[in-house]
Amino acid sequence: MLPPAATARHRDALRERIHGPILVMAGRPQLRNIPINHLPYRADSTFLWLTGCRVPGAAVLLDGDGDTLFLPRPPADDALWHGPQPTIQAQGQTLGFGRVRPLSELPEVVPQRSGLRTLATTDPATNRWLTEHTGRPHDTRTEQGDPSVIEAVIALRSKLDAFEIDATRAVAEVTEAAHRAAMAATRIGSHEARVGAVFDGVIAAHGLTTAYDSIVTVHGEVLHNFHRSHPLADGQLLLLDGGAEGTSGYATDVTRTWPVNGRFSPRQKAVYEAVLEAQLHSIQMCRPGTRYRDIHLASARVLTRFLVDEGLLTGDLDSLVERGAHALFFPHGVGHLIGLDVHDLELYGDTAGYGPGRTRSTQFGLNALRLDRDLVPGNVVTIEPGFYVVPAILANADITAPFADCFHASAAEAWLGFGGIRIEDDVHVTPTGPDVLTAGIPKTVAEVEAAIAAELVPFW
Amino acid sequence: MLPPAATARHRDALRERIHGPILVMAGRPQLRNIPINHLPYRADSTFLWLTGCRVPGAAVLLDGDGDTLFLPRPPADDALWHGPQPTIQAQGQTLGFGRVRPLSELPEVVPQRSGLRTLATTDPATNRWLTEHTGRPHDTRTEQGDPSVIEAVIALRSKLDAFEIDATRAVAEVTEAAHRAAMAATRIGSHEARVGAVFDGVIAAHGLTTAYDSIVTVHGEVLHNFHRSHPLADGQLLLLDGGAEGTSGYATDVTRTWPVNGRFSPRQKAVYEAVLEAQLHSIQMCRPGTRYRDIHLASARVLTRFLVDEGLLTGDLDSLVERGAHALFFPHGVGHLIGLDVHDLELYGDTAGYGPGRTRSTQFGLNALRLDRDLVPGNVVTIEPGFYVVPAILANADITAPFADCFHASAAEAWLGFGGIRIEDDVHVTPTGPDVLTAGIPKTVAEVEAAIAAELVPFW
Repeated sequence: MLPPAATARHRDALRERIHGPILVMAGRPQLRNIPINHLPYRADSTFLWLTGCRVPGAAVLLDGDGDTLFLPRPPADDALWHGPQPTIQAQGQTLGFGRVRPLSELPEVVPQRSGLRTLATTDPATNRWLTEHTGRPHDTRTEQGDPSVIEAVIALRSKLDAFEIDATRAVAEVTEAAHRAAMAATRIGSHEARVGAVFDGVIAAHGLTTAYDSIVTVHGEVLHNFHRSHPLADGQLLLLDGGAEGTSGYATDVTRTWPVNGRFSPRQKAVYEAVLEAQLHSIQMCRPGTRYRDIHLASARVLTRFLVDEGLLTGDLDSLVERGAHALFFPHGVGHLIGLDVHDLELYGDTAGYGPGRTRSTQFGLNALRLDRDLVPGNVVTIEPGFYVVPAILANADITAPFADCFHASAAEAWLGFGGIRIEDDVHVTPTGPDVLTAGIPKTVAEVEAAIAAELVPFW
Repeated sequence: MLPPAATARHRDALRERIHGPILVMAGRPQLRNIPINHLPYRADSTFLWLTGCRVPGAAVLLDGDGDTLFLPRPPADDALWHGPQPTIQAQGQTLGFGRVRPLSELPEVVPQRSGLRTLATTDPATNRWLTEHTGRPHDTRTEQGDPSVIEAVIALRSKLDAFEIDATRAVAEVTEAAHRAAMAATRIGSHEARVGAVFDGVIAAHGLTTAYDSIVTVHGEVLHNFHRSHPLADGQLLLLDGGAEGTSGYATDVTRTWPVNGRFSPRQKAVYEAVLEAQLHSIQMCRPGTRYRDIHLASARVLTRFLVDEGLLTGDLDSLVERGAHALFFPHGVGHLIGLDVHDLELYGDTAGYGPGRTRSTQFGLNALRLDRDLVPGNVVTIEPGFYVVPAILANADITAPFADCFHASAAEAWLGFGGIRIEDDVHVTPTGPDVLTAGIPKTVAEVEAAIAAELVPFW
């Protein structure tokens, strides 16, 4: 958890930028199949950032004369079913709030505050409540709240302070343990589901959750592959994209790709080294003032050189990158902001990723770039280039036709079945350059092969 | 997954009871903190029962002239991000549907069907859609849909057929492996989170999910304790209430309680044997025609005898049970229906648990009984008596005052810190008597102690 001093500074910073009252809600749990059976609860990220409070349904009101935390009073039989609970005053005090009120009083407060600004959440019931009580629409996908508050929250949250970096670093240690365990558990004849169970299990054994559904797949070329339906076969690559999230809410997002049999084949190694070179090159560019699209294109350029060397593309490097020919094998962006959200601040659409005057390109590949700002100190971004042999791309004439002059389809045929390789780390942009928060996770060919050969460290 | 023949029979059975068109929706995924980050998806149980289909957002229309499955057409770039997908026709065929239409056509269909009957889901967006398109309210907590459809669904779903029992039995095998692993992983100095990670990990390694958040706690006296914040200490009891859910959707729900140090103390053993005697006695009563409340009271009677023997209560057994004195130490009901939901059919409130003319008692303890029907063949119920030393009960004069003449508060003080013991299995009611679907899980003192001493079987 962030210390109360940290969240108090967040509230001060937001109040400094926005005059007048602001109400931010935590959201309520979503249901699984019956009312008693909840899906895992996650409070709204901006609410967490302002309060550190993980109580479902809570709310915070920032006002000129101070901040009020609204907490639900436990029902009368709560001690029986959920054990003894501190009073709401005591809960608030722990979080650094002098003023705490029962949540049931919130409906009286809202209409009294003229000029009240609000934010939508991902919880439909909370959005409906906000809509009813403010008369303004609140919707996760279309009406995310007061634009000036959103702008201020983006400016503030996207620069992580020392507390937040420390929190992320602590989470990264658990993510490292999970990746090491997954590598150690890998063997021919095992299964994606088993390796995934180990990865997620290490995170759970530390009392944390995954920041998103871990991808654990021998079909790394399927980019959003959340199924774990395949056994692990000799010669295959296993791609694992997963990261822990702290009780603080701060996320990590790390991808490694390794050979099921423990040794990269020469071809696998050649690709791996190219992706790694691209990644290291892009990481080195994570400095204040650098435009993130240039960091993306730098990875693209390294990969394009590899594609030319392998006879998959021909032509002038700069021109190939400009046309986006690399996207035939690297169809996504090189990364995104990360913080309290694994794609930080994406609740507010592209506003966080694309600064004023910048919009997404329509070019295939570049249209999947989630971030194009000039980096500033405190930003944390992922750097995650990849190489994928995707039949749905290579067999799609709509995509390949513009590259008929430079793409060697016949050479690509020999690559079908290769799968995909991605290497991803979380990088803190400091005034003096990049600080890789996930640097402890095996990454070079030698480190990865050693981690696969290592004994699984018991996490139970 | 259930075979298409099984779900076709479910549709036939429902169509036989309800004339006129019925629309049942799967529901859509709920969001975590950002739109790309979904919470684990679970389709509506009645939808699963009718279709076996796990596609988010799907719908089924039962009509006099046949059944139509509505499936979302994958977006154009789906193969790129999610891999190659079968056509919606092929998906429908696999599930036994000759007639499949794109989900986008559903809005045209709904208003054309006069007399269309519908059911709410736990997904707010789907409920809103249904409300908008039918003009009738749909709400998880208040407006669960057409009463005659609900009544028919309860009558049909609450009796599991051979396919469903087989599916549950297969899931129970995984639950057994998970409980055995959790026992084997238990040792002094470990942690609730670690044992929980092993339990959930075994289930995940089999490609399944938990049917609900597993309770893993050394404070078993806190009944709904989903935190895993305690280390495991010598002398403590660890209570684990958890069960797998199959890809079919069928749930298991099993509780075991065992000593952290591997050996029950004499007092722990005495309580354990009493709870076990109560459980076995109640299980034996799971026969067609038996009223479930009597099964509850039978467990209560065994436990009351134990409480009298221990000097915690005095008085006539029958009178103590009738007054509910046992609820001071056994404050919940002895079980509930289980099937596609872990508390089966609870989406429709108490309608499933309490038949016509029966309502919940207001007596402390009995007011927590979720089921009071006369059992029929095909019912699957949990049997889960327990003994808990709950300070919030024993120190609550409102609860204890009515028992001033029979409850020995001073004797109870010596029990503070004992924790709680619950033993729970899933029982299929057959024409010839009870069939315990979870019988393979260690349960006697000797079995449990042996399982703790056993080596953890690697699940990776």
